[in-house]
Amino acid sequence: MQEAIASFDFAEYLEKARTRVEDALDASLGPEKPEKLRESMRYSLLAGGKRLRPILCLAACELAGGELEKALPTAVALEMIHTMSLIHDDLPSMDNDDLRRGRPTNHKVYGDAVAILAGDALLTRAFEMVSIRTEGIPSERLLKIIGELSLAAGAPGLVGGQVVDLDCEGKEVDLETLEYIHLHKTGALLKACVTCGALIGGADEKLLEALSIYARGIGLAFQIIDDILDVTASSEVLGKTAGKDLIADKTTYPKLLGLDESRRRADLLVAKAKSALDPWPEKSKPLLALADYITSRDR
Amino acid sequence: MQEAIASFDFAEYLEKARTRVEDALDASLGPEKPEKLRESMRYSLLAGGKRLRPILCLAACELAGGELEKALPTAVALEMIHTMSLIHDDLPSMDNDDLRRGRPTNHKVYGDAVAILAGDALLTRAFEMVSIRTEGIPSERLLKIIGELSLAAGAPGLVGGQVVDLDCEGKEVDLETLEYIHLHKTGALLKACVTCGALIGGADEKLLEALSIYARGIGLAFQIIDDILDVTASSEVLGKTAGKDLIADKTTYPKLLGLDESRRRADLLVAKAKSALDPWPEKSKPLLALADYITSRDR
Repeated sequence: MQEAIASFDFAEYLEKARTRVEDALDASLGPEKPEKLRESMRYSLLAGGKRLRPILCLAACELAGGELEKALPTAVALEMIHTMSLIHDDLPSMDNDDLRRGRPTNHKVYGDAVAILAGDALLTRAFEMVSIRTEGIPSERLLKIIGELSLAAGAPGLVGGQVVDLDCEGKEVDLETLEYIHLHKTGALLKACVTCGALIGGADEKLLEALSIYARGIGLAFQIIDDILDVTASSEVLGKTAGKDLIADKTTYPKLLGLDESRRRADLLVAKAKSALDPWPEKSKPLLALADYITSRDR
Repeated sequence: MQEAIASFDFAEYLEKARTRVEDALDASLGPEKPEKLRESMRYSLLAGGKRLRPILCLAACELAGGELEKALPTAVALEMIHTMSLIHDDLPSMDNDDLRRGRPTNHKVYGDAVAILAGDALLTRAFEMVSIRTEGIPSERLLKIIGELSLAAGAPGLVGGQVVDLDCEGKEVDLETLEYIHLHKTGALLKACVTCGALIGGADEKLLEALSIYARGIGLAFQIIDDILDVTASSEVLGKTAGKDLIADKTTYPKLLGLDESRRRADLLVAKAKSALDPWPEKSKPLLALADYITSRDR
């Protein structure tokens, strides 16, 4: 098995997947009117980034035995929801961020009103992608995916986590609350990525359960690494304002556990996440490599 | 037929429908966490109002021969989308309104950040209502409804209309642009109300087509009346700031056409809307009465 994994060219896989995703994202926005709205949506949706969420979706679809092509609209939908959350999080009334992926944030370019509306439009478009723009998947399955997306993006997931996060700014926060925030704010959508991809691929309960454990692990690890990078990396490398957690007096893993223990915990979570996929040693190679990629990233 | 219409007790119908809708709205929000988010969502969703959109949905479902009960989650979803648009429209960066339905607007009570997120959560929850909380309707039909909702709420509908509306503030606007704004900002969702209700009820193409004409007519008439009321009614009666179109120097129907011609145009639109339902004289009574109700309202 060790050898088999070694023979899997992750860099090539990542490059190909990213190209597929970029092309699909570029094609996903039709001739929205008015132009300003379309530009604002495209500005943030096509701002680059790791495209981790859509790639996780595609990888889970393939692990379940599905065709990558059929998962593309859902992969795009997941990136649209993620982009919406970034646009709204960056607003002056929330995190008040001027920089994102090395460029001015959406509201800095288009104004607060259009930024809010572009977020709304991307969130809505995500549901259009799955309901109208997906072909060759049974309706019951698409309906399940829409259910997963709605739970992950809304109050039970992303939005709920963001409200708790805002509430905790400047307060003493314990590890349990910190985990609650991340499991909702980041974890719920990451879980939806693999779940929705697997549903497109026709996964059974056993695989869905394993992917759920996998997603929880990489979700938390992802956030711990984010916290670590905020302390250790420069703004130039991150493409967003570094050290802003410290400035905002936000509770982070490094603050609660120290840098070394945070790093150790992230490694442990990734190891656990990977072991959930043990029953599928061959087919899970992309997801295993993605888990490592998440913890070794420097931005 | 005249007599049959006379025998239909619209006041009783409206009262019953409104009670069903209020109960369904009240039950629609589960134990969202954190409490502040739940409160903010409930504050605006349960703020009263005519409940025109959900009632149109229920009436269209019944006209198509469906059971009202099965259309309730979709009716709630439509009101959630409408509520989201009100919360976001009222924000300081948009219309900057302090008063809505006689109470402080959402952001005045919960702050801008929570108001934005409550809107996001309501929009997302709308899709949850249809995808997860609807029973006894074939998946293909629910998927169609989700498609209709996504088009009506997003860039091709409500959000697109709002961006053009904001863009036109303080500018000279012609009748064509004014109609474009209203057909998107208000009309698209009103059309979705009857279309989605009719889909739940299993409507055929002929009925869907007629309802689409009906919705276009009442949608535009509704907006003309809104413009008229902004000029003629007091803030006390409206429950929102009156005269704000004048203050914001917005182009309105009264401004372009005068009050009398605006009123005449609204009446004509309603008459056209009603005649589209001629082939269903008995079953369309609630929708016919709702059309009159819209033009005779004083708030």
